[in-house]
This record gives sequence, structure tokens and C-alpha cells, in this order.
Amino acid sequence: MSKNQELAAKLRQLDIKDMYENDFFLTWDKTDDEIEAIFTVADALRDLRERNISTKIFDSGLGISNFRDNSTRTRFSFSSACNLLGIEVQDLDEGKSQIAHGETVRETANMISFMADVIGIRDDMYIGKGHTYQKEVVEALKEGYEDGVLEQKPTLVNLQCDIDHPTQCMADILHVIHEFGGVENLKGKKVAMTWAYSPSYGKPLSVPQGVIGLFTRFGMDVVLAHPEGYDIMPEVEEVAKQNAAKSGGSFKKVNSMAEAFKDADIVYPKSWASYAAMEERTKLYSDGDYDGIDRLEKKLLRENATHKDWECTEELMKTTKDGKALYLHCLPADISGVSCEDGEVEASVFDRYRKPLYKQASFKPYIIAAMIFLAKVQDPAKALEELENRGKNRKEF
Amino acid sequence: MSKNQELAAKLRQLDIKDMYENDFFLTWDKTDDEIEAIFTVADALRDLRERNISTKIFDSGLGISNFRDNSTRTRFSFSSACNLLGIEVQDLDEGKSQIAHGETVRETANMISFMADVIGIRDDMYIGKGHTYQKEVVEALKEGYEDGVLEQKPTLVNLQCDIDHPTQCMADILHVIHEFGGVENLKGKKVAMTWAYSPSYGKPLSVPQGVIGLFTRFGMDVVLAHPEGYDIMPEVEEVAKQNAAKSGGSFKKVNSMAEAFKDADIVYPKSWASYAAMEERTKLYSDGDYDGIDRLEKKLLRENATHKDWECTEELMKTTKDGKALYLHCLPADISGVSCEDGEVEASVFDRYRKPLYKQASFKPYIIAAMIFLAKVQDPAKALEELENRGKNRKEF
Amino acid sequence: MSKNQELAAKLRQLDIKDMYENDFFLTWDKTDDEIEAIFTVADALRDLRERNISTKIFDSGLGISNFRDNSTRTRFSFSSACNLLGIEVQDLDEGKSQIAHGETVRETANMISFMADVIGIRDDMYIGKGHTYQKEVVEALKEGYEDGVLEQKPTLVNLQCDIDHPTQCMADILHVIHEFGGVENLKGKKVAMTWAYSPSYGKPLSVPQGVIGLFTRFGMDVVLAHPEGYDIMPEVEEVAKQNAAKSGGSFKKVNSMAEAFKDADIVYPKSWASYAAMEERTKLYSDGDYDGIDRLEKKLLRENATHKDWECTEELMKTTKDGKALYLHCLPADISGVSCEDGEVEASVFDRYRKPLYKQASFKPYIIAAMIFLAKVQDPAKALEELENRGKNRKEF
Repeated sequence: MSKNQELAAKLRQLDIKDMYENDFFLTWDKTDDEIEAIFTVADALRDLRERNISTKIFDSGLGISNFRDNSTRTRFSFSSACNLLGIEVQDLDEGKSQIAHGETVRETANMISFMADVIGIRDDMYIGKGHTYQKEVVEALKEGYEDGVLEQKPTLVNLQCDIDHPTQCMADILHVIHEFGGVENLKGKKVAMTWAYSPSYGKPLSVPQGVIGLFTRFGMDVVLAHPEGYDIMPEVEEVAKQNAAKSGGSFKKVNSMAEAFKDADIVYPKSWASYAAMEERTKLYSDGDYDGIDRLEKKLLRENATHKDWECTEELMKTTKDGKALYLHCLPADISGVSCEDGEVEASVFDRYRKPLYKQASFKPYIIAAMIFLAKVQDPAKALEELENRGKNRKEF
Repeated sequence: MSKNQELAAKLRQLDIKDMYENDFFLTWDKTDDEIEAIFTVADALRDLRERNISTKIFDSGLGISNFRDNSTRTRFSFSSACNLLGIEVQDLDEGKSQIAHGETVRETANMISFMADVIGIRDDMYIGKGHTYQKEVVEALKEGYEDGVLEQKPTLVNLQCDIDHPTQCMADILHVIHEFGGVENLKGKKVAMTWAYSPSYGKPLSVPQGVIGLFTRFGMDVVLAHPEGYDIMPEVEEVAKQNAAKSGGSFKKVNSMAEAFKDADIVYPKSWASYAAMEERTKLYSDGDYDGIDRLEKKLLRENATHKDWECTEELMKTTKDGKALYLHCLPADISGVSCEDGEVEASVFDRYRKPLYKQASFKPYIIAAMIFLAKVQDPAKALEELENRGKNRKEF
Repeated sequence: MSKNQELAAKLRQLDIKDMYENDFFLTWDKTDDEIEAIFTVADALRDLRERNISTKIFDSGLGISNFRDNSTRTRFSFSSACNLLGIEVQDLDEGKSQIAHGETVRETANMISFMADVIGIRDDMYIGKGHTYQKEVVEALKEGYEDGVLEQKPTLVNLQCDIDHPTQCMADILHVIHEFGGVENLKGKKVAMTWAYSPSYGKPLSVPQGVIGLFTRFGMDVVLAHPEGYDIMPEVEEVAKQNAAKSGGSFKKVNSMAEAFKDADIVYPKSWASYAAMEERTKLYSDGDYDGIDRLEKKLLRENATHKDWECTEELMKTTKDGKALYLHCLPADISGVSCEDGEVEASVFDRYRKPLYKQASFKPYIIAAMIFLAKVQDPAKALEELENRGKNRKEF
């Protein structure tokens, strides 16, 4: 029995009927079975590709990517995932389009989607905006489909919003699952999701939020650490608390990197802006108050600079479990003495974990492909088996 | 018998042998049979896609899009059409290319087309330029093909020029045909193609020109209405007159929106710049007279502003046939109180027609695909039948 | 026996086992058999495409293009080549990506390549940088593949670096081979690779370097001509000398266009910057000395202008073999009185050679496709035969 066949059999046990024709906004919208289904399909697609078996499920198909913030790795992950399934990507570059001419979200969403099978959106810049925008797009697409305007309802894949970064965090945890030899080994493991200093400001909150919202589902002891004032969205902390209660893990907050790192099995030190600051910035942008934005930026950089001691050092790493916690980062990291003078992580720590960090990232295209696969295929377990039986080579000759 | 099979049978009755290996510049270059063939193939491709039957006719193929003016909807329509037929799109973004370095049209056309099956061009900014440019490109491609430089002559699809916007206007009329239950029901219907106020200036003339040049072929009574000075190209009015005479319809011009709307079955209120102003602007650009362009723009906006009463209001809509003419727009519309203070259409009118407007737009990818299909397939009726018999799923599983 | 079958048989005689899973940096890295294999596969793929036989070897596949300098023709050649083999292209536009945020080459190379089958890079702006960058990328990809980060090692295709422009020069010589009726007819032919005046400055040296590094392998008498001070990289001249010695041809340098053209069978007059100037510019850029760059540019343009007599004129053409040497150019050319006042070539000469020049360019997509094919297919002779036996139409119906 091949790995893919085993995974297909496992998939058959899961209750995933609601995933068909559905969307992916936030991990905590999804049941445990649904989350597991994504890991399962991701691993199965990877196994098939490694054995040169084509996983194209579309003879022709169209995917739309809409990056409202810069991206290299997520852009390529989305392209790769679509390509793996037979979907061609057309990028909606808002600079080139008529969106600047005052089109409404609803209209544009319909106009680009007549033949779209999937739409991936990154919109992470403004608190209260990105998730809302994605919801509006999906509402418009549903209406368009019901009205007979669209031939199909494209599946939305959240490629990062202001609340969650599901493709990143699910790639992170799938990497962790592989490193720890199975999801069953995560129970009781200590995870330190901690703020770290960076000489830039305004990094999205979606990664720390996504991590505490997802990692708490696996019975782990999740600690969120940040300097005073760098709070994340309280509703996501609430999600983490409830997840922890349900999964038999724990969630707590501390104001010390050292406390978080102490005996941790996994550390995820990363810079972010505070929720309050991001809300203020969003308001200033809405008001067009550019002087205010300048003043805010300077203030935030000054504040940041008082926390240069929040750095993932060799010394701190030594305090983790057996001195060898798994170091995670969504990349690119601000590496002290390499990409900046003082940063999130000491160069020697980063270098030591380079290989696992790249592996961590390598799961993202498969996570995205799995999300699309599960939304587009009615009987995904059967489809995985048939892909293998069909045995079409991805590369001929 | 499936809808596709019926349409294939109908297609077989039409004389369309000149469409093979040909191009699409202007609707009035084409015979009535050729125009009907495009509608027929568009409907057939839509029927096949709705039944999840793959319409890929290329195992590999390349399409080039060249947008010399901004575009979202036409860009995505072209991508969608190509994808539907198995053609991958490569965008010629002139900003990125060496065209700025003084390459001739002939050379670039050849250099990008060695393996191109189709080339879609939008060039609508300057009177006397866009159509001419497209003709030059096709001449170069023909020569390149004859010289053995190109393996095939790519088909040109006019995605909007200074004279016509055939993919838009054919989508418009196909929508009308569906709304009125067949092309045979169009005879005697009154169409009001009217200017409307917009707070911008310089919108292309290709939509009103395309509409009067096409709608007059179906025995309809086409009325063109605009304020004094907003004339369109006289040679296109001549086309409309001749079409009307031949089809048993009529074409007339009035200077009143109310007169045009009175008892109209279809209304198409839309802003455009005047022919004379666009000619002046083209000349100023050629001369590099940017002060002159500034002055012209201000003058035109002042003139525009004296015609704010040219708005598609509820009151005017009540004067149309039974108070419920079909409202058309190529989108995006300038909606009063929504996208601008005073615009082309009252918000409540636009809202009421949102669903049919989106349907109108949804025909464009199929129109484009039909144009390509008819230029690339020698026996299109047989090909439609064989696509159905082949029965390959567009989406597997 | 079809042309493709003949070429497959010829391919089977060549020792090309090292090409599988390998990269293409410089033509002089490759053995004569390997160079011949690329010509052979290029011709075979062209023959198959001309007979409408699909040459898709990937059911799904991803190619990455990274143009660090502007490009139209090479961009489209790469797209066309990938499309011909079933590979979809995703462009890495560094402006849009996070590379500006200080990512290292190694990290980015891995992050975009999880599913990439091929990566094409143009990086020709700075002496000592482009080739080095491509080497670094390949080292990173090899490491990523060995570490299990990447599912496959993407093949690198050098789309122009500071040292060589192999896809251009191999297209050039394949064109020459076809024009002279076979590679065996090149022996003893005189080639004039000469500098020519252009009103711009700073054109890369990779074309003249690539030409002398490749053309000397075929027993030809290669003459490099340029005004004093317009030297190319000495290590490439060394390559040319050694090639000439081995192939029974010759390589010499002169400081006169007339001497180079005298009795030449082939002329390639083209502007370039001097090696020393390009080195100085690279240093000024590294130092951020923009005033220095300005001063250098002015100095170089002044120097250039003293050599306006280096123009490919009708008079000079008359002195070539029978007055009808084959005129080559990588395009676009600076044509006197057309694209500039004084340029590289007289308009009447260029016009007379327009058709062969376009044919010359038409080989590039096939050269690129052959490079990819030979790196991806383990038994390419068998694959060519099977593509023909499979007989799948590129365009159906």
C-alpha cells in the first residue's frame, strides 16, 4: 500500500462533506477533521508528486491571485499549487487594473471570475479590513453564481489577512508534525510564540495570531510572549483559550522572552506591530493624515528600539528543552549582523536551522493545493486513489 | 440532442469559410453569417463548459495580450477565453519591454510571435492610431509567416481600438438576444445609444461606434443621442445607415436624451469624448504639447459639466417601453452618489439592473473564445460535435 | 524517415549523458557533442511543431523567469519554449517581490523553486556579477534538493549574463548552419565580429564574447574588431584562441572594421561598452557614487562619438565575400536615420537582411526548449521518437 493510498484511507474516515464548494478564511472556522483532511491531502499530493504521478484535476482551469501586499514566497506557493492541479494563474495587479477608477468590490469580483475556479487573496495591511474584504468578495461570488452570472463559485483561499495567515500556519504545523513524528506526539509540547525586535515597523499580526489560533488545537502548551503594548487582537486570544481548553493543552501570556523559551520544544520568535498601533495607523490612512502616519512610524520605531533585547540568541536557545527546541520562522527573518544590525535572531542560530526552516516553507504549496483540492473534488479520498491508478506521469520520458 | 449539437447543426448552415486563419478587426468587416457564427460558437462553448466538458483544442498554445490602455475585465476575459481553449497567455507589458527603445511595430510583432497562436490588442487612446496599429501588426505577421519566420500566423483579436470594440459590443448584443428570446425578436426594437455625463473626460468612442455599427444589423431602430459637439466618427455613422437600410431597421441622430429614451426597448447611456476633441488631443500628444493638453482637458471638463442633465434617471426610465427598457452598460459605470457626485446613471436604476449587467459582461470571454475558435478550427461544426463526443471532463473527479 | 527521426538517430550517436539534470551557463562549458545535441534537438522540436505534433513532455510543470534587465524577445522566447514543453511560466518580478527587503540569494532561490522545473535568468548589467549570481543560485538549488527541501533540482538556463549569451549565440550559429547548408560547410568561413557605433552607452559584452567563444569551435576564421579601448574580457579571448586552435580555425583581433569586413562570409557589427568601462561602472554602482556614474556616462558617450565611422555601410558590405556576406544582429539594431541619426548599420543594409534577421531570431525559442529538453529527459533520442509515435496533435481539429 503506497503512502498515498494509506492517506486516502485515512481521509475516508474524516467528516469533511462541508469542505466541498467551500472557502478557507480562518483555521478556527474549520473542524478538527477538516484541518486533518488538509494535512492528509497535502501529504498525499506530495507523495504523488515525488513519485512523478500527475495530480492534475483540471484539464483547463483558471486561478486568480490578488496580492494587495508584496509577496514572493506566497505568490510562488499559490502558482505552484495551482500548477500542480492544472490551474493557470492570472494575476490581478491592481495597479494595472481599473480598480483605482472606483469600482466596487462586488463588481470587480464578478468581472474577473466568470471562469475562475479559485481566487487567492492577500490583504493584510489594515486591521479590520483584510478579512472583511475577503468576506465581501465571497458574498459577491456566491450571489454571482446564484444569479447565473458565474458558471461556478470560485473557492477563496486566504493568502493572509489581518486576522489569520492560514496557509503559513498550517505549513508551520505540518512541518512540526513531520519533525515530531506524528500529530499524536504534539500533546504536552511547549510552544513559545514570542515577539522579537526588528528595525522595521508595522509587520502584520496574522502570523502570531494564526499560530496561537492553530497550535492550541493539538494539546500543546502555547505561550505568547511580547513586551508590554504589543498586544494582538483579543478575540484571537479568546480563540486560543477555548482551543486549549478543548484540546487539553494550555494558553498563557507572559512579558518575557526568557520565560517563554524556558524548556520550550518549539520557538517562533518574530516581530509584529501592536494591535493598537495598527488600528491607529488604519485610522490615519482612512483620514489621509500622512503627517500623522509619519509621526506614528517614528514613535513606533522608537518604542521598538527599547526592546532590542528581544532577540533569539544562542544563550536563550540553550534554555530550551535539551537546548534544542525547533526554531520556526515564516521567513524572511531579520538576522542580526546579516540583514540588519540588530534583529530577531542571532546569525548562528538561524544558520543552524536553515535546512529545517526551508523545509517548513516547502509545505506551503501543498497546503494551498490541498485547500483547493478539498473544495473542488466531491470525493477526495476516491480522487487520490484514482490519480494513483490513472498513473499519468507528471513528466513524461 | 444537446444544445451544443443543435448549435453545431446551425453552424453548419452558415457560410464561414473565410473565418479560418483570419482576424477580427471590426464587426462591419464580417458578413451576417460570420457574426451569427460567433454567437453560435459562443453559446456552444458556454453550454459545453456548463456541462463540464473540456473545450481545449490546443495541447499547448500561446496567446499574447497587449494592453496599451488599462483594463481589468477585458484582460480577464481574454485570459479566460484562452484558458478555455488550452492557450497560455503571455502579457506584453510595454513598460517592461524594449519597445520603448525604438523598435518598429513590424519587428516586435515578429519577435514575440514565433509560437503565438493568438494576439489580443487594446489600443483605444488615440483617434486614427489604434486600428492602424492593429492592421500594421497583422501585415507584419502575415509577412513573417510567408517568409518562414513564424510557424503560424497568429490570429488578431481586437480588444478595443479607436474605431470599434467588437468583443464588448458582441457580448452586449448576445446578452440582448438572450434577454429577448432570440435574434428574430430584435426586429423593430428601439435602441437608445446615448451620451451621458461623467466627471471624467476622454473616454474612447469605440463603444458608441461599435454599438451603432452592430445593432443596426438586426432590424432595430437605433437612435444615437448626444449633446451638440459630441460627434462620433462620421464614417461609422455611414456604416450604421447602410446597415439599417439593409436590415430593415433605422438609424437616426437626435440631440436629446429624452427623445432617445421615449419608448425605447433598450438604453445604453454612456459617456464619451467628442471625435473633434480626441483628434485635437491626438495632435497635441504627437506635438508633445503638454500645456495644450492641460488646457484642452480643462476646456473639455468645463464643457462636459454643462451637460450634467444627461443622466439616466428613474424618471427617464419611466418613459421607456412599459417603463422597463433593458439598461446596458459596458462597465464600470459612473454612478451618481456612488462612484461620483453626478454621473451617468442614478444609483437606484443601476442597482435594479445589476444582475443583467453582470450577465451582459459574462458573455465577453465566450465571444473572444468563439473568435479564436473560428479562426483556428477548419471545420468548427464538426469540432463542436467532436468535443462533446470526446467527452473529456474540464474538471476531473 | 521523417526529419525528426533522422535527427533522433543522429542524437543517439552523441555522448550527452552529462546533460541530464544539468544546467546551461556558458557554451564553452559544453563539449562539442553537447553543443551539437542542442542544435539537433532544436531542429527536431521545430520539425515536430511544424507538423502539428505536440512536444509536451510535462503534464504539469513550472518555469521561473528572472529578468534583472529589460527584455522582450528573450522573455517571449523563454515563454514559448516552456509552453512548447508543457511548462507554465511564473515571472519573478523583483520589483514586486520581497527581494528588496534583503533576502539572500540562497533563500529566495529555494523559496520560489519548490516545484520549479526550470529557471531562466538574465543578469547582464554588471561585470563580475551576472555569472556569479547564476552560479550561486544553482549552488543553492543543489543544496536545497539534496536537503529534501526541493522535490527536484530546477535546470538553470542562462538567458544572458555578463560573460555569455548562450541562447542568443546558439540561435545565431544555428541560423548560420541553416543558411550555409550544414555545419560541415562552416570550415574556413570568415566571420567579422565587429564593434559598431551607437548613440547609447553601456550595452553588454555578452554577445561579442558569446560569439567569439562559440563561432571559433567550427573551424571558422573569426576576427574581432573594435576601436582601441573597447576590449572585451581577456579570459573569453583566451577561450576563443583555444577553440580556434582545436577546431582548425583561427581567431585574431584587429582595430579596423574595413579589415574585418574584407572578404568576410559573415558580419556581426554591434555596439558594446568596453570591459574597463563596465568594470568602472560596476565599482561606482557598488559605491553608490551616482555623480561618478554620470561623469562616466558622459565620458563614454563622448568617446563613442569619436567612432561614428564604425558603421555597417553598403560600401563596406561590398568588400565582403562576393559583396554578400550574411549580416547578423541580435536585434534591436540601431539603424542610421531610422532609430537614431547615426547608428550601427545603414538602413538599406538592414532592410535587405530583414527576413534572414528575423529567421535568425526565430531559432531562439527552440534553442531554449532544447536546453530544457536535454536536461529533463534521460533518453532524449527515444523521447523524440516517442513524441512522433504518440502523434498527439498540438492543435486539435
